[in-house]
Amino acid sequence: MPTNDLHDFFYPGTVALIGATDKPTKPGRAVLENLASFKGTVFPVNPKHTELFGRRCYATVKDIPGKIDLAIVVVPSTFAEQVMGELRDKGVRRVILVSAGFAEAGEEGARLQQRIRETARQYGIRVIGPNALGVFNSDNGLDSFFVSRERVSRPGAGMLSIIAQSGAITVILMEALARDGIGIAKAINYGNRLDVDDADALDYFADDPKTGAVAVYLESVADGTKFLQAAKRFASKKPLVIWKAGKHTLGAIAVSSHTATLAGRYGLYQAAIRQSGAVEAYGFDHMIDAVKAVALMDYPCTGNRLLIVTNGGGMAVAAADQAEQEGFIMPRTPEAARDRLRQAFPPFFVTNNPIDLTGSGKDEDYYTAIKEALPHYDAAVIILLMGATTVTERVTEIVARACHEVKKPVACCMLQGLGYTREAMSTLLKLRIPVYPSPERAVRALAVLRKTSCRRT
Amino acid sequence: MPTNDLHDFFYPGTVALIGATDKPTKPGRAVLENLASFKGTVFPVNPKHTELFGRRCYATVKDIPGKIDLAIVVVPSTFAEQVMGELRDKGVRRVILVSAGFAEAGEEGARLQQRIRETARQYGIRVIGPNALGVFNSDNGLDSFFVSRERVSRPGAGMLSIIAQSGAITVILMEALARDGIGIAKAINYGNRLDVDDADALDYFADDPKTGAVAVYLESVADGTKFLQAAKRFASKKPLVIWKAGKHTLGAIAVSSHTATLAGRYGLYQAAIRQSGAVEAYGFDHMIDAVKAVALMDYPCTGNRLLIVTNGGGMAVAAADQAEQEGFIMPRTPEAARDRLRQAFPPFFVTNNPIDLTGSGKDEDYYTAIKEALPHYDAAVIILLMGATTVTERVTEIVARACHEVKKPVACCMLQGLGYTREAMSTLLKLRIPVYPSPERAVRALAVLRKTSCRRT
Repeated sequence: MPTNDLHDFFYPGTVALIGATDKPTKPGRAVLENLASFKGTVFPVNPKHTELFGRRCYATVKDIPGKIDLAIVVVPSTFAEQVMGELRDKGVRRVILVSAGFAEAGEEGARLQQRIRETARQYGIRVIGPNALGVFNSDNGLDSFFVSRERVSRPGAGMLSIIAQSGAITVILMEALARDGIGIAKAINYGNRLDVDDADALDYFADDPKTGAVAVYLESVADGTKFLQAAKRFASKKPLVIWKAGKHTLGAIAVSSHTATLAGRYGLYQAAIRQSGAVEAYGFDHMIDAVKAVALMDYPCTGNRLLIVTNGGGMAVAAADQAEQEGFIMPRTPEAARDRLRQAFPPFFVTNNPIDLTGSGKDEDYYTAIKEALPHYDAAVIILLMGATTVTERVTEIVARACHEVKKPVACCMLQGLGYTREAMSTLLKLRIPVYPSPERAVRALAVLRKTSCRRT
Repeated sequence: MPTNDLHDFFYPGTVALIGATDKPTKPGRAVLENLASFKGTVFPVNPKHTELFGRRCYATVKDIPGKIDLAIVVVPSTFAEQVMGELRDKGVRRVILVSAGFAEAGEEGARLQQRIRETARQYGIRVIGPNALGVFNSDNGLDSFFVSRERVSRPGAGMLSIIAQSGAITVILMEALARDGIGIAKAINYGNRLDVDDADALDYFADDPKTGAVAVYLESVADGTKFLQAAKRFASKKPLVIWKAGKHTLGAIAVSSHTATLAGRYGLYQAAIRQSGAVEAYGFDHMIDAVKAVALMDYPCTGNRLLIVTNGGGMAVAAADQAEQEGFIMPRTPEAARDRLRQAFPPFFVTNNPIDLTGSGKDEDYYTAIKEALPHYDAAVIILLMGATTVTERVTEIVARACHEVKKPVACCMLQGLGYTREAMSTLLKLRIPVYPSPERAVRALAVLRKTSCRRT
């Protein structure tokens, strides 16, 4: 598929929404509302209405004046064939089939899906879906997702794009990013993958100047060879994180009823991910953490020498446990740096790596520790326990400043707590320091960055 | 150690705080403020003050009239020997040594710690610490933790007690529990473990009527045999979760500078945990999840047959992947139940386990799915994606009602998102349905419950 085929899905001039409605809880209502942000023309289609929210509503597609670049279809699957016929006659060549009730719902649905595939192939219509959210593009406000923004916040503009076989995962990744103030470029959820697939999306994003990295959620791939080629090509240019779900028997059964596909052998997927130069995410939390690392960490991680700075020893022990698992080493703080730290600190601070400022560490002590020690390491986990009375709300800015001065990648760790820590976390994220809710997850995020950095240097 | 030795630490009538102060950021200030909740008498001690926050302040311990049941010492370690002498002369037999700067700070500190140990042994003084937060008791408001409540919220009263070698872990566990509205009975952080140790605390909590379960964070144990005995005795009565940190080389190095102890061979600890009948937590997140399961789940998990109900297929796949790892099986929904679900649901819902209500599932559909299917299983993961427009804020109450009617253990999964989901999470927790931020963690929590349930039935 030439990449401009997908381009037209993300950058249409005119969009028709088949099944637009004002009924609350209906997908056609949510999509219509979400399209309000789209910098293009929207034509609602529904024979029961002549107007919807101030827009003229058309009885059928053929009543719409002029060309339709993209049709978003949210009507029940029983009407899908009829609608596809009307779209064909109208000359529409890009269709997002949001509706469920196809191959994932049983044999009858599978036959329906097959008939629509044949129509689409015959008339050169490219289809995303069915059983899909479709596309989101922060560049022009296009948003075919049938989840309201009141429920699921949309991230602002950013460099990360998302490719996901699951709508739920797409939405939840977007909400997690929005929560942390991390923007995205584009997202695509292709559901049953009647036509447009994972590899098509990777190929498109490889050349998309707005996309700097991609996170992929896969249950299966349409074509293994095609996917591997696309992944290799993408990963040679930009960081790529892939989560393969449906790993073993139980997951594979869940996949078959979810996206009506075969999950395949996990071992083969792992080998392909490794071979492509992508980084594997092992589950939901790992995916969120990896995405945050790729989107927020501004400096590459070019080696495995890890520094830990903490004001709580137990958290450093947990981080060190995870560091060993991820292949990091933790060399002692170099003697000259230790001497300077000993002079700056009270005698009960621990100056060897992990540097432990104890419950008495002050804001400035973090600055001193990071500035003196971090230049000798490849990355650092900075643990900030905001419960210590000697730490103020300024510590986040001070830590961020030190890290950006040293220009080494850093993952902060802070409990997702009540008011006080929530403020602090959001300050760190604004200052482009990713923050994780446990020491293990902070280390794991740096490990992801290290893998993507190695491939790019 | 007879258990009543520890009883006096948790239930003193009179407490002296050596090093009380009004200086912000000083530990002596935080502890003094926190003792305001204590239902007993508090005597601040500091020669620089005659009054502190309306309380009379004493120059030395010997000036205090009457008997002192417990002394909390927050003065710098250089004054520790002198203070110990004064406490000995005053006849104080319970001391919490909060101060740092002992064995964890180097050889000189280690010698100081040894001298204090000898004094304590000689005069029958029992010591918690040094380098420790001490004790928290929700039963009488005793709180020797030098972290302000403004920074770290205290949980209310509950059945869980905490034993932790790390102050940071103690505090962070407490904050996580407070955040989720889960109460605790007591907590003890013994730091360098000059005297009172892990096994003493376990023995005391085994007989404490207020303690229904214990979570332990260990870097090392003082005496392996004694600990194993105490753990066995405890686990034969109540659920016990143990996190052993400092597992391998890097973690062990971090342990030695943290609590000045030898982390020991992880394999031995794992064997001991298994042998004792406790459940091992593998890291920070696992510990939080396990503690929440033990504290909140009201019904035992007596088998490995897991049901998943979701409104997003991808999340169910991730849960199924984890279920396999944790030894759960996921039998098909029994035919009779499937028939009833098929009648109740639109045709595109998936009625086989995992039951997928898709993005169109309504509040009542959760109720129907749980009531029809859960009786045939041992436990369930209920995935609630609040982004779906068909789900309202009432879904949490409806899910909780169904689960409590069926009386099977349930772990909900909901993204830790913005306003809307935050409300929903807190409703679930109030209704005693634990909720986890990822499908994998929900499954893992049920696995913990299953292990503790097996041991108790």
